[in-house]
Amino acid sequence: MGDALVDVIATCDDDFLTRFDLPKGAMQLLDPAEALVLYDAMGSARETSGGSAANSMAGAAAMGTNVAFLGQVADDQLGTIFTHDMRALGVRFETPPLETGASTGRCLILVTADGERTMNTSPGAAHLLAPAAVEEDAVRAASILYLEGYLFGPELGRQAMMKAIDFAHAADRTVAFTLSESVCLPGRKEPLQKLIAAGGIDLIFANESEALQLADATDLQGAIDRLSSQVKTLVFTRGPAGAVAFEDGVLSEVPAISVPQVIDTTGAGDLFAAGFLAARCKGHSIERQLMTGGIAAAEVISHFGARPIANLADLVKL
Amino acid sequence: MGDALVDVIATCDDDFLTRFDLPKGAMQLLDPAEALVLYDAMGSARETSGGSAANSMAGAAAMGTNVAFLGQVADDQLGTIFTHDMRALGVRFETPPLETGASTGRCLILVTADGERTMNTSPGAAHLLAPAAVEEDAVRAASILYLEGYLFGPELGRQAMMKAIDFAHAADRTVAFTLSESVCLPGRKEPLQKLIAAGGIDLIFANESEALQLADATDLQGAIDRLSSQVKTLVFTRGPAGAVAFEDGVLSEVPAISVPQVIDTTGAGDLFAAGFLAARCKGHSIERQLMTGGIAAAEVISHFGARPIANLADLVKL
Repeated sequence: MGDALVDVIATCDDDFLTRFDLPKGAMQLLDPAEALVLYDAMGSARETSGGSAANSMAGAAAMGTNVAFLGQVADDQLGTIFTHDMRALGVRFETPPLETGASTGRCLILVTADGERTMNTSPGAAHLLAPAAVEEDAVRAASILYLEGYLFGPELGRQAMMKAIDFAHAADRTVAFTLSESVCLPGRKEPLQKLIAAGGIDLIFANESEALQLADATDLQGAIDRLSSQVKTLVFTRGPAGAVAFEDGVLSEVPAISVPQVIDTTGAGDLFAAGFLAARCKGHSIERQLMTGGIAAAEVISHFGARPIANLADLVKL
Repeated sequence: MGDALVDVIATCDDDFLTRFDLPKGAMQLLDPAEALVLYDAMGSARETSGGSAANSMAGAAAMGTNVAFLGQVADDQLGTIFTHDMRALGVRFETPPLETGASTGRCLILVTADGERTMNTSPGAAHLLAPAAVEEDAVRAASILYLEGYLFGPELGRQAMMKAIDFAHAADRTVAFTLSESVCLPGRKEPLQKLIAAGGIDLIFANESEALQLADATDLQGAIDRLSSQVKTLVFTRGPAGAVAFEDGVLSEVPAISVPQVIDTTGAGDLFAAGFLAARCKGHSIERQLMTGGIAAAEVISHFGARPIANLADLVKL
């Protein structure tokens, strides 16, 4: 479950980020008027379907996993593009489009010469995913329910997630949650901490900064100490320093896969989660889960866009 | 002047082309229903602004040429994307969007592993460009009016072109025309031959096959013999064999620029014309015009999509 977005990707220089006061590497939410101003100013772009959890499901499907996506598009051209791309990749996607009220969400992504992406999301219909859209049968049928932090911010999305968590746990399924910068903001962090303390989440994905913020910790061990009593599996990505997992009292660690040139880091975390989950669904070891995530992340940062281009199934050989 | 299209680019294998009876490397027109069927069947795609003459203007602008584009989009999301991309590249584009009746045109492009593109165009609003949309002042102000063969097929587009030719010639400007497979079809070829015989065209771009068809010739020399009495400048591209020009009784020839790997040939002819025209507008020699076209074409076949990614101005140093 997550945001259904179309990515609008352009390159820019550091001065452009400074001029629009955009913190490099971060994600910020834009209202439609702000999005228009930024779009007018940014360069010629290419469009691909995006969204964090949607990217993960696209990647997991490419690795041979049986996946579905729950997310909200509008009944417009970008919604048609998003829907086509999910289905073309073998992802079940049956959430009916919104007929009125908002356009399909988009993410204006600015990529600098160092490969860093700065994301500016105009969520539109994506944040209008309602609890009624949660398909009970699909959630109960899935071994893992994977939730994207960005959708935990808006009230409707959060309610939809809580409903999905209830369905999943009633069927004895695993609930995985990927943190995002936005869930670490005041007003979002506290309800998430409460949900975690109540046993609502079984597996957390986070980068190092998000993990420290959520756990109110100063180092990764502190975050593990704080969270491991509440969450069965912790998975932390550390960029070029690789990834670590803590599960059943055991710490596992893998190095990052090096790539010839980092072109665009968009989707690195999403594809890491895709690889991890794909290997997990096939019953592989936690080290293999981490390694598979690393391979998928390395592929996606080697080109523009947050969806795999190479044949991921061949790369990860699950 | 040409089709305003958004390209929808996906890879496919040769079997897919066979299954849908699509001749590799060709362009065919689809009606909206046919386009839906093909889109449903094709893989996950990336979208970029396209259109043959529009690609050329984007490339010429990137090489520092002062350019405008005349073409028709609809008032929809794809039309907004096309408009944004033209303006972001510095191309003046002021044709008002159509409010009703058709969607912005798109071209479903299938790229096989050998880099060949097979194009399936659903022209939509693009072929509804009307004579009333031709901006007299813009045409009179331009040293070259560049016309795209694809838009010579539909009745409205052809009328708009004839009107633009009149404006250009009244102001003593050069009229350039790029052939396309579609203008070589019966019903289109004859009016074009008539236009050429009447002195309507001063410069022709064509690939070898189009040149032979238009001239009813069996070899390039035959085409030159037939056309050079009617058209001041002939420019023929020959793919990996380079390009030739015939002007003022002199034949000039340049080899193709070799590229490490041909990824996607979409836009090769468009960018060749862009480079040629950019160098011509700066007053360079005919050899330099051909060479500049070759450099721009080499850049665009080295990646997916028909618009330049590298800094063309740096590459061609005009």
